[in-house]
Amino acid sequence: MASSLLSRQIALSLQQNLRLCAPGYRYVSKTAAKTLEEFEYDGPSMKTEVPGPRSKELMKQLGEIQNVGAVHFFCNYEESRGNYLVDVDGNRMLDVYTQISSIPIGYNHPALMKVMANPNNLSAFVNRPALGILPPENFPDKLVESLLSIAPSGMRRVQTMACGSCSNENAYKAMFILYRNKERGHNTPSQEEINSCMVNQVPGCPDLSILSFMGGFHGRTLGCLATTHSKAIHKLDVPSFDWPIAPFPKLRYPLEEFVRENAQEEARCLEEVEDLIVKWRQKGKPVAGIVIEPIQAEGGDNHASVNFFRSLRNIARKHGCAFHVDEVQTGGGGTGKFWAHEHWGMDDPADVVSFSKKLLTGGYFHKDELTADKPYRIFNTWMGDPSKNLFLAEVLNVIKRENLLEEVMRSGKALLHGLYELQAQYPHILSAARGQGTFCAVDVCNDATRNALIAKARDKGVILGGCGERSIRFRPALVFKEYHVHLFLNIFNDILAEYK
Amino acid sequence: MASSLLSRQIALSLQQNLRLCAPGYRYVSKTAAKTLEEFEYDGPSMKTEVPGPRSKELMKQLGEIQNVGAVHFFCNYEESRGNYLVDVDGNRMLDVYTQISSIPIGYNHPALMKVMANPNNLSAFVNRPALGILPPENFPDKLVESLLSIAPSGMRRVQTMACGSCSNENAYKAMFILYRNKERGHNTPSQEEINSCMVNQVPGCPDLSILSFMGGFHGRTLGCLATTHSKAIHKLDVPSFDWPIAPFPKLRYPLEEFVRENAQEEARCLEEVEDLIVKWRQKGKPVAGIVIEPIQAEGGDNHASVNFFRSLRNIARKHGCAFHVDEVQTGGGGTGKFWAHEHWGMDDPADVVSFSKKLLTGGYFHKDELTADKPYRIFNTWMGDPSKNLFLAEVLNVIKRENLLEEVMRSGKALLHGLYELQAQYPHILSAARGQGTFCAVDVCNDATRNALIAKARDKGVILGGCGERSIRFRPALVFKEYHVHLFLNIFNDILAEYK
Repeated sequence: MASSLLSRQIALSLQQNLRLCAPGYRYVSKTAAKTLEEFEYDGPSMKTEVPGPRSKELMKQLGEIQNVGAVHFFCNYEESRGNYLVDVDGNRMLDVYTQISSIPIGYNHPALMKVMANPNNLSAFVNRPALGILPPENFPDKLVESLLSIAPSGMRRVQTMACGSCSNENAYKAMFILYRNKERGHNTPSQEEINSCMVNQVPGCPDLSILSFMGGFHGRTLGCLATTHSKAIHKLDVPSFDWPIAPFPKLRYPLEEFVRENAQEEARCLEEVEDLIVKWRQKGKPVAGIVIEPIQAEGGDNHASVNFFRSLRNIARKHGCAFHVDEVQTGGGGTGKFWAHEHWGMDDPADVVSFSKKLLTGGYFHKDELTADKPYRIFNTWMGDPSKNLFLAEVLNVIKRENLLEEVMRSGKALLHGLYELQAQYPHILSAARGQGTFCAVDVCNDATRNALIAKARDKGVILGGCGERSIRFRPALVFKEYHVHLFLNIFNDILAEYK
Repeated sequence: MASSLLSRQIALSLQQNLRLCAPGYRYVSKTAAKTLEEFEYDGPSMKTEVPGPRSKELMKQLGEIQNVGAVHFFCNYEESRGNYLVDVDGNRMLDVYTQISSIPIGYNHPALMKVMANPNNLSAFVNRPALGILPPENFPDKLVESLLSIAPSGMRRVQTMACGSCSNENAYKAMFILYRNKERGHNTPSQEEINSCMVNQVPGCPDLSILSFMGGFHGRTLGCLATTHSKAIHKLDVPSFDWPIAPFPKLRYPLEEFVRENAQEEARCLEEVEDLIVKWRQKGKPVAGIVIEPIQAEGGDNHASVNFFRSLRNIARKHGCAFHVDEVQTGGGGTGKFWAHEHWGMDDPADVVSFSKKLLTGGYFHKDELTADKPYRIFNTWMGDPSKNLFLAEVLNVIKRENLLEEVMRSGKALLHGLYELQAQYPHILSAARGQGTFCAVDVCNDATRNALIAKARDKGVILGGCGERSIRFRPALVFKEYHVHLFLNIFNDILAEYK
């Protein structure tokens, strides 16, 4: 089906979009002439403002059923290809946000279509098993082939889950269980613990805590939400736990100009972490685990140095807190390494690494000692979804076969370089361009301008996402090549020029 | 693929299993000769003990990666059909547990295979959208066609989620938000609320509570877990909230012999509910919502009368608590009505009804006033999975086309009648047979005997599940016909006879 539409669409898009390649693009000559990927379009094509009339109609319809305040527009996923998302009004946009960073290798990738066409795979879709009790025959092999092939250093165990929040919730539980078993010195609970836990009371439900960071985002279920501190609207009106919250370094840019200040800022935050651990222990709510993103994504693409993370990992070890690196958004290759924590260059980077989004299945890797000591402690009906594992295995094949991490490094370099140039050209609008791989961001002078830039980009055929108070985050798929970068930079440049 | 294997397998199974239809089955003459469904096997076929050698080998392999203490055996889902689950050692078992009650119309149902074969559906599998921001064109229509066609009385709004826990977590959040907005008299938070919620403190993160019941099960993420009270192992070592927990009626069986006692017991529990609501309000932790299962499933298939639920619903209304009926396990037709709460015969049975399992997607229906008042309050990356909605739509078609709810009533009657007979015959082993539709259970004299019965049944080709302290729960698919009931009863009878 996909291929039958393809030739017609490529022909059409070539005609319709030649104009888009024309007016004053600085980067065009360098790379836009690169070979067209066979399954992709050659550029954006805009027919209406976005959301267009059909999207608005559907929004009204969906509004009868749900709050649609967050809906951007409605999509035609059948017609979407590679880096291009097509909407229901026929607009085709270069997608630099990829469904909140969750599409690994673009839309309708032929390799993923093949997974669907393989009759051996059908029953994995049709019969969703209760993985924790009745796994399919190929489950161990598939885990070895897919998830374990990308296991973080020092980890050989993984637990799949349905989504990012469930992954973090269960990782927290594993850390609590480990902490209590260490505290006890054995794993046999007392009768008092057994009885009290049934009614939510200590000692069975102990007053343990997870230390998190201001600006962090780890999900929206009640446990996760107690460690999420990026935006008030996520947390307002929801009961929470009295858990310690450390400051995350606020680095000043450009980094090379603020070396001393930033080092001091990171030292301050690390000191505060240790203080909080001590304070919460004294309060009777010891810190069982520390959770942190390698780059605070939702919270504004906040980075910290390798040294910061290395020191933090040591603090966790020193105080007997499990160290949980949440790679739900950073994992999967966007930073140019499969896991963002690989940039730290450590043999023992973490005790837990959670994932979801680009990995298509949720879950978490963990050290051996974080394996549940008894059955049914880390458990739910589905425990993930083997059909997602099938797609993931294929995604990993494509990443290897097409050297996509190298591509990401190359594209990322071009993107960051472009952002540096743009912020030099428009210093009153842009600042603090930063990133690893294509996992980049730039600050905008204020919230309103940021939102206006995103809206204008969309009307010109580029989908961007915001994060933090006034940042734009770039989250393209791993198939976002250098010529896509230049296409984006050209369009973005035109928009910024209007602010001159 | 499915059909090519079919004829060979049916021929084989006919030969191999004739012996299973032979020795001393009381019910055989009545219905076992019924027409074979074209896609199903005609009976169990056991080749090894379970788990067999291949399952044990795989268990060892998976044990290197995960705790496998809960794994029963490994499955060959490709070869499984209808009510029969085939394992990796070639054993074929009548499945009366269906992946913890989550397979609605049996394995590899032809109608679901067709969903996969339809090229128009491929992109829904390959491109998982962020439903909350970029839904596919057919999303509103699919919701109307599938979920809204089965909306509980008084509800026309639904929010999909990835699993049962996420459904309940988000339903709780919606109830907290509503409660606070009512308390405020408006939905504009103060600056103090905005600031304090960012650090998990009151008033932004208010001390609100959800009232739940002893024996209830609502999931295992931290919010859900605070309302789950079925088994200690689920809760031990995990921090919780100080929320009120009411007793759930402990009915005595047979019901007709204990009318007065049971009415008193229910009155006692209802009184306690009101006391707790008042007490927690005085404590400064008002009850924003009450959550309850129509039948406490995981907790032991505990039933209560229609009158109990009607009274409870009124108590919730009287005290301004949202009333959340958790139908994750009871929903989807197993009780003979699509929702178990339909048995209460109320126009306004609930404010929230959550679902998952047999509905293949998680989610919750809710009253209009529980719609999030602002975007991004009830939100996550995926917000469900449209590919599951496709399957659900087809499941609903099959239920209607094949009158499966009527079948469930018929099979359920036969099952419960059979259980009554068996408990009359083996009063020292079985008691308190109970159920609605095929959602039945029976108590066993003790835990050890219950587990032995389940193990023996498995070796004879019947998969059963336990629940509570010493109950067996029956959770067949909706395609479990009267002749499957009799097949089961015959096998179960043989096992019980060994205890005579």
